[in-house]
Amino acid sequence: MSVARVLHHFPLDPASRQVRLALGEKRLAFVDNPVRYWEQPEEFVALNPSGATPVLVEGVGPGALVVCESRAILEHLEENYPEPPLLGREPADRAEARRLLQWFDRKFDYEVGGLLLHEKMEKRLLRLGSPDLGAIRQGREALRLHMEYLEGLLTTREWLAGRRLSLADFAAAAQLSVIDYFGDVPWRGFNHVKTWYMKLKSRPAFRPILADRWPGLAPAGHYDDLDF
Amino acid sequence: MSVARVLHHFPLDPASRQVRLALGEKRLAFVDNPVRYWEQPEEFVALNPSGATPVLVEGVGPGALVVCESRAILEHLEENYPEPPLLGREPADRAEARRLLQWFDRKFDYEVGGLLLHEKMEKRLLRLGSPDLGAIRQGREALRLHMEYLEGLLTTREWLAGRRLSLADFAAAAQLSVIDYFGDVPWRGFNHVKTWYMKLKSRPAFRPILADRWPGLAPAGHYDDLDF
Repeated sequence: MSVARVLHHFPLDPASRQVRLALGEKRLAFVDNPVRYWEQPEEFVALNPSGATPVLVEGVGPGALVVCESRAILEHLEENYPEPPLLGREPADRAEARRLLQWFDRKFDYEVGGLLLHEKMEKRLLRLGSPDLGAIRQGREALRLHMEYLEGLLTTREWLAGRRLSLADFAAAAQLSVIDYFGDVPWRGFNHVKTWYMKLKSRPAFRPILADRWPGLAPAGHYDDLDF
Repeated sequence: MSVARVLHHFPLDPASRQVRLALGEKRLAFVDNPVRYWEQPEEFVALNPSGATPVLVEGVGPGALVVCESRAILEHLEENYPEPPLLGREPADRAEARRLLQWFDRKFDYEVGGLLLHEKMEKRLLRLGSPDLGAIRQGREALRLHMEYLEGLLTTREWLAGRRLSLADFAAAAQLSVIDYFGDVPWRGFNHVKTWYMKLKSRPAFRPILADRWPGLAPAGHYDDLDF
């Protein structure tokens, strides 16, 4: 039996994209409701007091289950819809996938995503004026270091956390795909990362992400090319 | 049978304290190894490439399990040492506990902990000069808003996520306890938060935290008072 499932999210939010990829991979149907999070809509803040996307609602009425914040949603999906497993089954595999989840949610987000997306996206959405070129440069330099780290991992591993696709891949791809929308990922020279990203791009779960567009924000030309 | 268990942590790091509290509550013995994370010791970065505390190592030799980053460790402990449960058993309880975990790991850390601890602690540890009073003021103002939010939750709930003690309480207490070490928590006027914190402080798992001292950083006078 299928559950009424609504995902409140913002298409260009990496945390939201992680959840969309996990839902897609697990073939869990959902209605998507884009949220203009920067306007802090009242009905959305009533769902999640932090005001952050994504929020997943399963069921309707007073008995509905509301799951706020990406990490909580991902763990919820894994516990309640275990197939296919996206964290691995062994403690060591789960530890490695979750280590990388935190890497992207925190380290990458602080050093790269937060800077580049604030300058290139949020400033336009919130009409905060022109981007700070120093901040963009700093984000791009940090991005190269992260690309080198990923390239190193993918030299010996098929997927980021090891032999199987996991939430770590989705966390990385969620961040990179939004930065790629703005044309800022330096693919050249990172061949293992590029091959890995092509494999992800061609999965059915990725299709809705490649179709994302937001008024006033045009994607880079190669954004939805499977062979870029 | 007991497992050789080592926690690499920094005593005044909120993420490390979450894990120490969870280990204590689950009565899991461990050897603690304090890490001067700001010096990025080589053997520590070999364990966790992000350079962040905490890291838990279970077992010895090549078969040892290395679990990096607080959230990964907390989920690992919950999966492998389920008693007492610290996330609840029902999906709604688990969602609520994890929502609050992310609140403290991210929102509180960005708005309060990151500012106050950088100014009052890291600048001294790293000899970065005197604190920026504007940043401290901003952190303190944000802290009051968070205290109001907690006060609201604790008006109708015994513990932060509901009727039972959970990781959400430990995440909040971990952040507040470090700020309290520096004497910056405005307890007055937040009676429910204060009562809740007194209950936590008197738990055996909290004792090692109240005994923490770091050379050159003296705690506020009331720091380890159970009745403050």
